[in-house]
Amino acid sequence: MKTGKFRKTNSGICINNFRANGVRKGKYGIAIISNERVCDTVGVFTKNSILAAPISVTKRKIEGGLNAIIANSGNANACVPDGIRDAEDMCKIAGRELNINPANIGVASTGIIGKRVDMKVIADLTMMAARGLSSSPEGSKRAVKAIMTTDTFPKEISVEYRGIKVGGIAKGAGMIAPNMATTLCFMTTNADFDRKKLQTALNHAVEDSFNMLVVDGDMSTNDTVLLMSDRTRKCNFDDFQGLLNYSAKELAKMIALDGEGATKLIEVEVRGAKNREDARIGARAIVTSPLIKTAIFGENPNWGRIVSALGSKIKFRFENLDILFESGKRKAVVVKQGRVKNLKDAQKILKNRNIRIIANLNSGNESATAFGCDMGYDYVRINAGYS
Amino acid sequence: MKTGKFRKTNSGICINNFRANGVRKGKYGIAIISNERVCDTVGVFTKNSILAAPISVTKRKIEGGLNAIIANSGNANACVPDGIRDAEDMCKIAGRELNINPANIGVASTGIIGKRVDMKVIADLTMMAARGLSSSPEGSKRAVKAIMTTDTFPKEISVEYRGIKVGGIAKGAGMIAPNMATTLCFMTTNADFDRKKLQTALNHAVEDSFNMLVVDGDMSTNDTVLLMSDRTRKCNFDDFQGLLNYSAKELAKMIALDGEGATKLIEVEVRGAKNREDARIGARAIVTSPLIKTAIFGENPNWGRIVSALGSKIKFRFENLDILFESGKRKAVVVKQGRVKNLKDAQKILKNRNIRIIANLNSGNESATAFGCDMGYDYVRINAGYS
Repeated sequence: MKTGKFRKTNSGICINNFRANGVRKGKYGIAIISNERVCDTVGVFTKNSILAAPISVTKRKIEGGLNAIIANSGNANACVPDGIRDAEDMCKIAGRELNINPANIGVASTGIIGKRVDMKVIADLTMMAARGLSSSPEGSKRAVKAIMTTDTFPKEISVEYRGIKVGGIAKGAGMIAPNMATTLCFMTTNADFDRKKLQTALNHAVEDSFNMLVVDGDMSTNDTVLLMSDRTRKCNFDDFQGLLNYSAKELAKMIALDGEGATKLIEVEVRGAKNREDARIGARAIVTSPLIKTAIFGENPNWGRIVSALGSKIKFRFENLDILFESGKRKAVVVKQGRVKNLKDAQKILKNRNIRIIANLNSGNESATAFGCDMGYDYVRINAGYS
Repeated sequence: MKTGKFRKTNSGICINNFRANGVRKGKYGIAIISNERVCDTVGVFTKNSILAAPISVTKRKIEGGLNAIIANSGNANACVPDGIRDAEDMCKIAGRELNINPANIGVASTGIIGKRVDMKVIADLTMMAARGLSSSPEGSKRAVKAIMTTDTFPKEISVEYRGIKVGGIAKGAGMIAPNMATTLCFMTTNADFDRKKLQTALNHAVEDSFNMLVVDGDMSTNDTVLLMSDRTRKCNFDDFQGLLNYSAKELAKMIALDGEGATKLIEVEVRGAKNREDARIGARAIVTSPLIKTAIFGENPNWGRIVSALGSKIKFRFENLDILFESGKRKAVVVKQGRVKNLKDAQKILKNRNIRIIANLNSGNESATAFGCDMGYDYVRINAGYS
């Protein structure tokens, strides 16, 4: 299925009968996403060995399905003694306001770690957010704004194809010290599949989007991707998978472009690898390297650093390697079969905001794409600051 | 054996009858280290799958022992079609000037990659360097200066204990675009051990020094550590190993402190790990994280990022974790058994130039130390620049 077939809509997460709202007060924000049905819900969570409390709570609750998700910014509820109780209490507060069983409410948090959540503020904001729930695009927009931290723009997507709908909101690599680059992503659909199929689809979508997204290489205690389905639309699984993949990838790209201090979106494709794992590792190695990220910031087509980053992680022969830089329809061959070509065209390409680096190992048929951003002075400024 | 027992000398690499010299001309520099005997020589080389030509040549030659090493800065002799021939020719030129069999001359290079070495310049500089070989400390100093790239200070060490001598020079994470952070290190000793024992000792020394050194996480095509022994001193192996470990670690620390744009040396010790590998991975994860490096630059005791970096790579329980910051004799407990303590003392410690971060997992007896540096605006400035 080609991306071109999808119709973009403006629903955000509020597809079908999903409702949402968000409110902010000082450093805190609360977003609620809800549905009158108990929706089959699946998730993908951080692989960090230190888990924030809401993750433990939500992992358990999604098994029985969710009516709602409550998410807060301002505090990660991680590395604190009473975290589990506070996360459970957030679900209870939301349950009371929404008149829903707290057992069917998921919770997610982002923000400062090691400090206890201010439950008074949470309660006030939850009450306000619950009152203004809306199925309009504005409801989705308010929700995504409420979970932003240092994000500079809200990240939303909604697409439709043959009656299948997928909506999503996300927050990116926002930093509040002491902190980490938490990714929160909430997705909704009407696709009528059971939890097992939904999980398969979400795993697949995350593998090629959020798991290939590198802002600075660190993984948060709070990373959460949730997918709720109201199961009102019978449909073809591949069609649904295509929509979900596309939506997750678009959200991941928005997060990459909004990396701290980022001025350019970098997509790296490793092609012609012997196996998929090499392609994935190679693409991530390139997009993770601070040497490459700073070079792209400086609009410097430094192919040597690409060779070095690749060679640090996977085996290949330089004599077979092609390196291309692309932006839109412009292309520049920088290395062809291990021979260095003219770099001037590549320099021109690097003046654009969306950069694509293609490394073709010419030794197999597997490929993978990773997403990231450049690294400039603002990255240092934002992350060196004490707050 | 305690470090305190070693006597530091000022020989640099010119211990015993080793002679050295170095000359520079424009971007190029040539260093020569030589001995009248054929010295048993062992090496440790980059694990990057793309190898610079001099590495292939030197790996082969050291098996028969070396009389001399020729090293150049200004060009890495990597990713070029005629690299092997040029590396061999460098040995031939040096052999002619020194009246030594080129089969017993090793070669190493650092600098720009993908461009052919200027053999005319190499020949001129080699002639000049060969004429001024000296066994004085000045010879060693001229040699180390000749291989510097963006290094801001020369890195030398020489120590003695019970008649055993170890000398060494190194260059650090210098960048010339397109480039990579090449480490070159040449060491000399009089310890009378065969190649097998020398290799064991060098592997051990490198494992706890250069292999635990992270400036920006990338690994070069040219990284080379060579150890030559004139075998004139019978001695205890443990004594020799102690001297070699100490020397390699001191050189690695100098490289860390001279990381591009670095303002602080960061030593990270992970203690109380169940196994050694976890301790090593954990220490390297902390010292590699750009979030932690920028926080230290900003003198911000951001323990949350330390927890996150550790948790991304190894398993541990936050309830058991202690985090300490140290500088000299000053200590500040930031986290104790998963409880956050006062951060004010830690902030004061971070104002110093030498920072030690200790993360105690309190779940075993293994420990490891990694070396690195902070990441500031100058890192971006240096690496974004086009040259």
